[in-house]
Amino acid sequence: MKSLATSIDVQGEDLQEYCRKTAEQARLASRKLVSLSAAAKDAWLRAAAEALEENVDPILAANTLDLEAAPSYGLTEAAIDRLKLDAKRVAVMADALREIAALRDPVGEVIEGFRRPNGLEIQKVRVPLGTVFFIYESRPNVTVDAAAICVKSGNAVILRGGKEARHSSSALVDVMAGIAPQFGIPREAIQLVQTADREAVGHFLSLDDYIDVAIPRGGRSLIERVVREARMPVIKHFDGNCHVYLDESAEVDMAVAITVNAKCQRMGVCNACESLLVHSASVQRLLHPVLNALADQGVEIRGDERVCRQFPSAVPATEADWATEYLGPIVSVKIVDSLDEAIEHINRYGSHHTDAIVTSSLQAARRFCAGVDSSAVMVNASTRFNDGGEFGLGAEIGISTDKFHARGPCGLRELTTYKYLVLGEGQIRT
Amino acid sequence: MKSLATSIDVQGEDLQEYCRKTAEQARLASRKLVSLSAAAKDAWLRAAAEALEENVDPILAANTLDLEAAPSYGLTEAAIDRLKLDAKRVAVMADALREIAALRDPVGEVIEGFRRPNGLEIQKVRVPLGTVFFIYESRPNVTVDAAAICVKSGNAVILRGGKEARHSSSALVDVMAGIAPQFGIPREAIQLVQTADREAVGHFLSLDDYIDVAIPRGGRSLIERVVREARMPVIKHFDGNCHVYLDESAEVDMAVAITVNAKCQRMGVCNACESLLVHSASVQRLLHPVLNALADQGVEIRGDERVCRQFPSAVPATEADWATEYLGPIVSVKIVDSLDEAIEHINRYGSHHTDAIVTSSLQAARRFCAGVDSSAVMVNASTRFNDGGEFGLGAEIGISTDKFHARGPCGLRELTTYKYLVLGEGQIRT
Repeated sequence: MKSLATSIDVQGEDLQEYCRKTAEQARLASRKLVSLSAAAKDAWLRAAAEALEENVDPILAANTLDLEAAPSYGLTEAAIDRLKLDAKRVAVMADALREIAALRDPVGEVIEGFRRPNGLEIQKVRVPLGTVFFIYESRPNVTVDAAAICVKSGNAVILRGGKEARHSSSALVDVMAGIAPQFGIPREAIQLVQTADREAVGHFLSLDDYIDVAIPRGGRSLIERVVREARMPVIKHFDGNCHVYLDESAEVDMAVAITVNAKCQRMGVCNACESLLVHSASVQRLLHPVLNALADQGVEIRGDERVCRQFPSAVPATEADWATEYLGPIVSVKIVDSLDEAIEHINRYGSHHTDAIVTSSLQAARRFCAGVDSSAVMVNASTRFNDGGEFGLGAEIGISTDKFHARGPCGLRELTTYKYLVLGEGQIRT
Repeated sequence: MKSLATSIDVQGEDLQEYCRKTAEQARLASRKLVSLSAAAKDAWLRAAAEALEENVDPILAANTLDLEAAPSYGLTEAAIDRLKLDAKRVAVMADALREIAALRDPVGEVIEGFRRPNGLEIQKVRVPLGTVFFIYESRPNVTVDAAAICVKSGNAVILRGGKEARHSSSALVDVMAGIAPQFGIPREAIQLVQTADREAVGHFLSLDDYIDVAIPRGGRSLIERVVREARMPVIKHFDGNCHVYLDESAEVDMAVAITVNAKCQRMGVCNACESLLVHSASVQRLLHPVLNALADQGVEIRGDERVCRQFPSAVPATEADWATEYLGPIVSVKIVDSLDEAIEHINRYGSHHTDAIVTSSLQAARRFCAGVDSSAVMVNASTRFNDGGEFGLGAEIGISTDKFHARGPCGLRELTTYKYLVLGEGQIRT
């Protein structure tokens, strides 16, 4: 294996040229990937899984360099734990590659096809987007997943990982890209950006001739920067301010189970519940059991005036609370007088991510589904299910709260576009 | 009918507030449109068709005002002809509305649906985008088509037409929006921007909280401005630099017919042929008949060195010719030594719009379809078929050369997105 993490140190025009060259190579690689067979891509994924397991020693050696440097970056205990690799975690990454190999190739799928009166046969066929610029936080397994998902969907990828994981990511990319040419995949299909200079991100975001989509994953300031600077489209989600609405007709046990699961099963994730709405006609029946169950889990209740009257240990909610993604043990709670008020509140303060209703009324379920403008609307199910794996899409590269191109979990198919193929026998237009 | 074309004259903060208010009203209207039945929308379209025909007098009176002002805008004869309405043209617009009424409602279509192992039923359902900001040239019928397509697909629309047609457009919108409330459609679902101030466009392009997509149609400088300033996604196409490639195995008659049709059937449109590539192995057989047929139609041939040697009346092509959309009686012609060279040339100089191969070889057709990165790839058919009507999509609002969201002709369906509906019976995530 070649030396790991040869971080380049270039500035100004050199840096710009490095980025341009990297992106141009990705574009050239993407042209080759377009017509690569599923068999070749899947054989590469399975071989890459093997290769990761065979190279566990150099991978762990690289990871040790990152772990040694971690204190100098001020990483928390939790972040260091996410960064740390061992043989078992490498095996988990390898298994993820085998799972992606087993997924159906999205490229070439005939989305629809029909014959026109003049005999033209028209097919709408799924094709890769081209080149993906992926900017992400420091977990090494994200490097492996992203490279696999992008190449399986026929795209070249430029990986810009966090500097905290650069030795680990470099070792992983070396393994995966190193064996790629054996399967007809250009090595440049998977490139890790070899500089920690933040200006490099800006250069890449200007290269819309070479890069078809930017996918940022990380904090709000990173995503805002990418949206501001990118000259190509962006797949992103900002916040997950998800709601659970307990309708008048909700069953108590189900209301408790879903609210507690949505809020508490994992607090720091984008599809966790941050806000609870309860219909005023069922306050007596629903509010106390649900809030008691949340309080038992250590969740702080921030309520509107009526909630605070009913539940004295609640803290008064401010206007800002309705729009806040806590990502922790706090929930805002509001009593609403109608289903319409719930829908309006969600559309106004929510983040169009995931919102759930608990109800026994078919009419209420239908109106909630139609009215709530979110990537996923849940009826009698936890918000936590809005996830590529839970939807059965296989691996995902993110969840989009945008309405354009892809909405909700983004897996292999969401990294593709389509083109029309029109087959004739000499037809001309009259 | 209220007074026509009450162009407001506001500036600075007033203008900004006017735009904000218009966009906010569109957003509120769009929330109502989401759950409107197809029956209501279609009834409105049919009634609007009637109303246009009944109001032909005030519409023509408004059109006269535009025609009187036309010389002061320096409009060409052709532009004045496009601007001019008469009873027959109003009837054609009304018929277009009836055709759109007859199309299937895209909203509510279940794109896919499946059941997960835990019993969750997941549906991916088509929903409107929300609010469309449409910026377009001066033909009055575009006002009518755009309003109809946007509302039929469940979207509110803000129409920013050319000032040359403002009296006509205002009269048409007054008729269509005026009767909308009778069908449960808010009047604000269709708003015409009531100022010619170009700054208004900039204000609207900043209002991404209210507007979901901007669709510019017009010259390159307009589209570039919109792409630069828009904070929401844009559906657009810049150029149509379309190619016809005559493969080694092309039949002569078909090669002539398709090339002449693609180049000459209508010269000023985006799906007309601008560049011809001919395989070197069939120059003797194909080049002369095809170029003679083009020359007979008055088309100037700009050829590479080999073409100029074969066809002495050709003008030498410069590097710039390969990338030029002439929109007129000129074609650039190049001899290539292989199918791969043709594909590379098209991907390099083309505009990813429409490119055709004429061939008898299945292998060549397959490789061309796979390799050419364009919104539509034609095999033995004229490039002129890349069109919503020819594809059977019904009315279209434009053709996209982007890969994101929509590619190729954009009709009703391309003005929608989707959301996931997840139906459970109390499922929680473990």
